[in-house]
Amino acid sequence: MTRDTSRDGWKNRLRYSLLTSWPTAWGVLNRTKFIHAHVNRWLIDSSIRMARTRPHPLSTMCDYSSVESLRDKTWFTRHLPAVEPPKDLPSPDAVANLFARKDKAKLSKKSTMLFASYAQWFTDGFLLTNTTPPDPRKNHSTHQFDLAQLYGTTREVTEQIRVISEASGQRGRLKSQVRRGEEYPPYLYDENGTRKDEFSAVPDPFGPVGALRDESRRKTMFAFGGERSNTTPQTSMLNVLMLREHNRVCGELECAYPSWDDERVFQTARNVLIALQLKIIVGEYINHITPYHCRLELDPSVAWKANWNREPWFAVEFNLLYRWHSLIPENIYWGTKRYSTNDWFLDNQPLIEGGLALAFEATSAQPAGEIGLHNTPGALLSTEMAAIKQGRANRLASYNDYRAEMGYPRAATFEQISSDPEIIEGLRALYGSVDRVEFYVGLFAEDPRENAAVPALLGRMVSLDAFSQALVNPLCSEHVFNKATFSEVGWQRIQQTNCLADLVARNVKGGNKLLVTMTQTSVPPKPGVAAARTQEHGPLRALAQTEVAQ
Amino acid sequence: MTRDTSRDGWKNRLRYSLLTSWPTAWGVLNRTKFIHAHVNRWLIDSSIRMARTRPHPLSTMCDYSSVESLRDKTWFTRHLPAVEPPKDLPSPDAVANLFARKDKAKLSKKSTMLFASYAQWFTDGFLLTNTTPPDPRKNHSTHQFDLAQLYGTTREVTEQIRVISEASGQRGRLKSQVRRGEEYPPYLYDENGTRKDEFSAVPDPFGPVGALRDESRRKTMFAFGGERSNTTPQTSMLNVLMLREHNRVCGELECAYPSWDDERVFQTARNVLIALQLKIIVGEYINHITPYHCRLELDPSVAWKANWNREPWFAVEFNLLYRWHSLIPENIYWGTKRYSTNDWFLDNQPLIEGGLALAFEATSAQPAGEIGLHNTPGALLSTEMAAIKQGRANRLASYNDYRAEMGYPRAATFEQISSDPEIIEGLRALYGSVDRVEFYVGLFAEDPRENAAVPALLGRMVSLDAFSQALVNPLCSEHVFNKATFSEVGWQRIQQTNCLADLVARNVKGGNKLLVTMTQTSVPPKPGVAAARTQEHGPLRALAQTEVAQ
Repeated sequence: MTRDTSRDGWKNRLRYSLLTSWPTAWGVLNRTKFIHAHVNRWLIDSSIRMARTRPHPLSTMCDYSSVESLRDKTWFTRHLPAVEPPKDLPSPDAVANLFARKDKAKLSKKSTMLFASYAQWFTDGFLLTNTTPPDPRKNHSTHQFDLAQLYGTTREVTEQIRVISEASGQRGRLKSQVRRGEEYPPYLYDENGTRKDEFSAVPDPFGPVGALRDESRRKTMFAFGGERSNTTPQTSMLNVLMLREHNRVCGELECAYPSWDDERVFQTARNVLIALQLKIIVGEYINHITPYHCRLELDPSVAWKANWNREPWFAVEFNLLYRWHSLIPENIYWGTKRYSTNDWFLDNQPLIEGGLALAFEATSAQPAGEIGLHNTPGALLSTEMAAIKQGRANRLASYNDYRAEMGYPRAATFEQISSDPEIIEGLRALYGSVDRVEFYVGLFAEDPRENAAVPALLGRMVSLDAFSQALVNPLCSEHVFNKATFSEVGWQRIQQTNCLADLVARNVKGGNKLLVTMTQTSVPPKPGVAAARTQEHGPLRALAQTEVAQ
Repeated sequence: MTRDTSRDGWKNRLRYSLLTSWPTAWGVLNRTKFIHAHVNRWLIDSSIRMARTRPHPLSTMCDYSSVESLRDKTWFTRHLPAVEPPKDLPSPDAVANLFARKDKAKLSKKSTMLFASYAQWFTDGFLLTNTTPPDPRKNHSTHQFDLAQLYGTTREVTEQIRVISEASGQRGRLKSQVRRGEEYPPYLYDENGTRKDEFSAVPDPFGPVGALRDESRRKTMFAFGGERSNTTPQTSMLNVLMLREHNRVCGELECAYPSWDDERVFQTARNVLIALQLKIIVGEYINHITPYHCRLELDPSVAWKANWNREPWFAVEFNLLYRWHSLIPENIYWGTKRYSTNDWFLDNQPLIEGGLALAFEATSAQPAGEIGLHNTPGALLSTEMAAIKQGRANRLASYNDYRAEMGYPRAATFEQISSDPEIIEGLRALYGSVDRVEFYVGLFAEDPRENAAVPALLGRMVSLDAFSQALVNPLCSEHVFNKATFSEVGWQRIQQTNCLADLVARNVKGGNKLLVTMTQTSVPPKPGVAAARTQEHGPLRALAQTEVAQ
């Protein structure tokens, strides 16, 4: 059965078709620097202009605009005003059932667990709904892609995880320890399983309630700035990689600028790390998500004159649409071992035991689950239920209202959303009419698209907010994104870095021989990418890309 | 003697000449709605584009850009980087002497004390350099024109000065008392001269050290949200006017929207008051400052697509250039009384005794001092000295550097700055070379211009930052500046209000017969203004304008 595409909208179909056909032509374009720069600009800019951009008039604070509501970012901003929810909505339990994985996981045809892990780790830096006390309308985010996973959201936290010293070889560094010959952050708990005083401001590791009652798990927790960075060995893996790169960059800066004090080395290294992160977000992660042949690249100048360049502020819809629980399989394969995802929380033992090389290899080798309904593992169903409740607590408009806001015609039948009879019947049984389908459910009910990591509406919404947040980072602004801010040495590193593999090569023993990839090796890379990479990086990276392509 | 204008720059001379010649043509233009709207847009937009706009790469925090320095607004942002100050700068005492008024005040040919009072009261809402503990590099501003003079800079303060009640006739109101038949805020101190507990978060009135040791003064202090609103009877006068308008608007809202709760009435009234304030800033105050014939008007849409629409953040230069101490005369004439400005601090007795009608009448009738060197009253010389030190503490670039940044050729001789032999010789004696003249001194050393309230470089810098801050107020943004935000009733009030006189007419007994004006009655109003006003307001306001013109 195929989906009824009559309500996809001709402009959307044209855009999609243009961007996903003629791979050879796109290959040429991707390699032709000057034209590619223009198309890259247009694609990013037009992705943001799909709907109204910030500042939005309303937040989750109240139903009217006020000085407080337009200023207080502890509330989420919102794309659409709150609505009175339709009567007799199905119970959250019943809705969560639509998400529940049946017998076994549907696997993604494109994404590896490195993609799943990166998505989780990346969003854990900023999608920080309040949990103590719980309030689904509020957050404690800095509203920037500023690597709060690594550095924390407040200066107090940052200062506790830093080495503050003018001694050479220490300047600007984050505290670290060596385990089995590799660099990690220090532990958060001491030998007795008690929290160390020096990390009093560091947030408690976030995860399933009670998981840390187990002393052996507690002892493996790292003193990370981010509250969710210890959540799984993979989130820890990415955070450790960033910590190593931070300390490595500090060494380069200290060497190149011996007169710089501790503070300047730290701050400049952090600038560099955030720029590296932004390059990877656009150049690797978003490239992986889209099914388009055009190779996307970070180009801060796209934002300099843009009328969507407005204060960053995360929307509640962006927070919700990012719950990609279906990416998580039933088991994690880690070297020669297999772990159930039910136990895969708040325990860094597998990471420390195997080291970062094994971690990246394992994470790149395993396929992720496919994003969609009927594919959330049992361990995460309660999280799914919380998301459904968060949507209702914020009185979000319906799935169809968001389609309209984002430039898609309203769906008239369930068959226009999905081609899967089980999903169609499930939606019909719960909602009766298409107009009653909730935002959160509709997002994930849509059919997967060929060579895309996410369905259509979700894809559109995620690019709109991700681009418009990434490009308005203060470090990307017109008079800041330059060598003065990042230093000559830092600027070079930024130019030389395009993907996680580059960081792994620099910071993991044997890392330059590893296959580090968000895209499964059976999926052809974006046309022209391997060639373009050869040009930029020489044979080594090209070799890795060739392996990916095989 | 006339000033050597050879280094004024031909573009600047052309612009100035275009905007200050042909009053008849400008009169027609000011009355022709469609063309006027375009010219108004161009004039505002081009005033902002005179130099680099926000986000600036540096703040007063440190000499490089970092996540902290680009985010922490307790430091000032800055137009130009810090410099190593030239050696052997003259002592602050010697420089302050350049500011000292000689025998008697030079009076402005254009401005009344209402202009001086408004400038002080307006800037006291946001130019909040830290004083406890003193740090000339830091501030506690909200970085918006948000009437913090009235409402305070924090929610805690706002809540203490509000009546929080669902009772009809109370909703949304600010606390007030009646004295001699007129509405004022409550007193901050009780009968014994002790601060009232209910205002524990309200800031101490700011003024000369020790002035409040006098119990009789203490007893006249109002519980104002702003720390500097009690500073003089005129700042109090403007704040009381705003309080009355706030409470009046609440009454209108309560009447029109009986279902609204206390919070919504308050927040909407505050929205309206801020919009009124913005209209007056552009339509009356900035109009008064510029010598241009074009009538300037608040048009939020100028900012909607502009690439200078960036997060508001006050610059240290804007803070300094606003020290218009020379506006203050030696004496204040208040009804039949005369007060020395030496005693004119932290004492609301004259205001309460005479009432608001007398206060506005007296303030509108007295000419202000002329802005420039050798005209600061003795009582303010220590404040002048503090400004000179603040410029040095922030290592500001030189006067000539700022000329270059703002599109003026660097001055080569002292005769290109001033035509006044005393000033020329004073500068020469202190600095030797033009390039050594400090920013703060150079600003005020320039010749006054015909029909302008401020000299040229100061005028350019004040419009750049004032416009670019006013128009990026969140309430002015594209999807917020509408009836939904201000209510139908509030929107009408905004349309009907153009100047302080309109507020006085609504809130002061007999206020519609008063002459309330920032411009002396001997100065002709902007061409076409009286006629345009007649169209908008009917005969009453036109009558007042005719009086102004006579």
